[in-house]
Amino acid sequence: MLEGALLIQKVAVIGAGSWGTALASVLAMNGHQVILWVRNPQTAEEINNTHRNEKYLPEITLPENIVATSDIQEAVAGMRIVLLAVPSHSMRDMCKKLAAHLEPDVLLLHATKGFELESLKRMSEVISEEVSPGIAARLAVLTGPSHAEEVVLQQPTTVVVASASEESMLRAQDLLMNPNFRVYTNPDLVGAEIAGALKNIIALGAGMSDGLGYGDNAKAALMTRGLAEISRLGSKLGAMPLTFLGLAGVGDMIATCTSKHSRNWRAGYMLGQGNKLEDVLEQMGMVVEGVRTTHATHALAQREQVEMPITSVLYGILFEGKTAKQGVEELMGRGKTYEMGLLNPDADRPE
Amino acid sequence: MLEGALLIQKVAVIGAGSWGTALASVLAMNGHQVILWVRNPQTAEEINNTHRNEKYLPEITLPENIVATSDIQEAVAGMRIVLLAVPSHSMRDMCKKLAAHLEPDVLLLHATKGFELESLKRMSEVISEEVSPGIAARLAVLTGPSHAEEVVLQQPTTVVVASASEESMLRAQDLLMNPNFRVYTNPDLVGAEIAGALKNIIALGAGMSDGLGYGDNAKAALMTRGLAEISRLGSKLGAMPLTFLGLAGVGDMIATCTSKHSRNWRAGYMLGQGNKLEDVLEQMGMVVEGVRTTHATHALAQREQVEMPITSVLYGILFEGKTAKQGVEELMGRGKTYEMGLLNPDADRPE
Repeated sequence: MLEGALLIQKVAVIGAGSWGTALASVLAMNGHQVILWVRNPQTAEEINNTHRNEKYLPEITLPENIVATSDIQEAVAGMRIVLLAVPSHSMRDMCKKLAAHLEPDVLLLHATKGFELESLKRMSEVISEEVSPGIAARLAVLTGPSHAEEVVLQQPTTVVVASASEESMLRAQDLLMNPNFRVYTNPDLVGAEIAGALKNIIALGAGMSDGLGYGDNAKAALMTRGLAEISRLGSKLGAMPLTFLGLAGVGDMIATCTSKHSRNWRAGYMLGQGNKLEDVLEQMGMVVEGVRTTHATHALAQREQVEMPITSVLYGILFEGKTAKQGVEELMGRGKTYEMGLLNPDADRPE
Repeated sequence: MLEGALLIQKVAVIGAGSWGTALASVLAMNGHQVILWVRNPQTAEEINNTHRNEKYLPEITLPENIVATSDIQEAVAGMRIVLLAVPSHSMRDMCKKLAAHLEPDVLLLHATKGFELESLKRMSEVISEEVSPGIAARLAVLTGPSHAEEVVLQQPTTVVVASASEESMLRAQDLLMNPNFRVYTNPDLVGAEIAGALKNIIALGAGMSDGLGYGDNAKAALMTRGLAEISRLGSKLGAMPLTFLGLAGVGDMIATCTSKHSRNWRAGYMLGQGNKLEDVLEQMGMVVEGVRTTHATHALAQREQVEMPITSVLYGILFEGKTAKQGVEELMGRGKTYEMGLLNPDADRPE
């Protein structure tokens, strides 16, 4: 496997949002030949002519070994490695379009956080339903604390690649790793995906705590207990608890909750200050992933009968007219609890 | 046990620094009668006359059911609950002075983070060597993300009480818990103490990353991988890995690393900007716990043969003349690693 680090490879990156573009950039700087698929033919032309992605990463000049196309067949045909970086809500459609053109031995790696809302399925579940079983078995996810804006500036960044296939993890690691972009491997695909998706709920809550005027103690409590409850749901769904202690869990949560650039934090902050959800969403003018994820996770928690007090309170604030202040009081006023109820929803101590 | 919540109890708090004073304040607001031991007789008089602790929490008026004394026998004689909140370096001496006056059935609870530097012992090990075996068996620690300044303002705060004795945990929880101060229990005394002590190393590293001008990705990486290595050392020393995912671990680390008020963060920041350790310490004019803890932990890691790359790099920067920039390059340039090497120091992938 180690020869991979020295080989120049052809890689397709599907999706030219900020994260897809940043990953294409890492691959290209590692010397690989990158085809970047972008939905809009004009954007493809612009990237090829100017080596810039004006909409998502306006301040960066992209390496010249990134070639953009809007033709999906051209992008993936003959490729042995395809990296998917499309929004969660378009993942299934994209896979339907891709599937027929994939090589049977392709390594499919995805870098998309979130669930399919209607089905409550993880991204790898969605992808697996659309591609051949052989490809599905090798599927890997890339996640972790990685603001695209910092990655393209070559600031130190660590990510994790998770897969049930050791070969896939090592190939992806060899492909992406460089002195500014450190790639760890983890066999827990399920945990890595769940941690990446659910951290947005905690970011929303952390913003709310700040918006209410609470301090570092409250925010740290919210983040820690939030992590405990997503670990609890994750374990029920087959994740390894320790994954939540890693880059996909704690790491990504910290990067998201402590950055004022996070949309989820910002939405939470405005809610904490007493604004209504409709007004917040209107003012933000774009999708707030944490709001959608709270809805999906609340449903998942009910289905799996996992106690998730923070998610439940956020659900009440977002969708049932509870105020943020009432929510905090509800959380603080709960019964006495064993901390390690973490993994055992029945461990609450009766009052 | 539950009746405890309704009973007014007499509690001694030993140490009137900001944390001891804040905990005395929580106990007093819960209705208990608190004796606060303070080293300096003048300070005791001042607290009794003015109900203020000018030096450590100047802006707060203390509840009137806190009575200060500088007489250790007066403070603990007849008490069934004694809370120790003295600096780590004076814990042994304090226990030597206390021991003869303690009731045989006393619950001893400590709230001190750090190691005894010469012996590399945890606080509960130090205390246990100075008190009777019966008292030692019931010992509990209180830790977690709790800036004293916020606790006295009654901002939402969560802490964890850990002990090998379930009865001790539940008594301490009943004693301290109120709607603004939520107390979790955890049976892992060892893990709670190690997490609380070692998080200062990470805070130093996080400050350094900020001081070097790196972004959120780098800081999140440092915090996460730092947590991984202190969990690894903790496990070797008998801690439960999941404790590091809780309030004593992640929680306290977040509160410390993201607060610009943290001395450790500030010292790290100045080092990251290129200042020398002597100058930083001189400028700070006080003990930086993370510097002492790095020294102790480096020795512990060698004794236990646990790989701790971040601690080792920090040790090099603090005590061996390495620059902060060299340190980061060393960390990013390490071999390819399995994330779950977390619990297995041999899991590093050879290059």
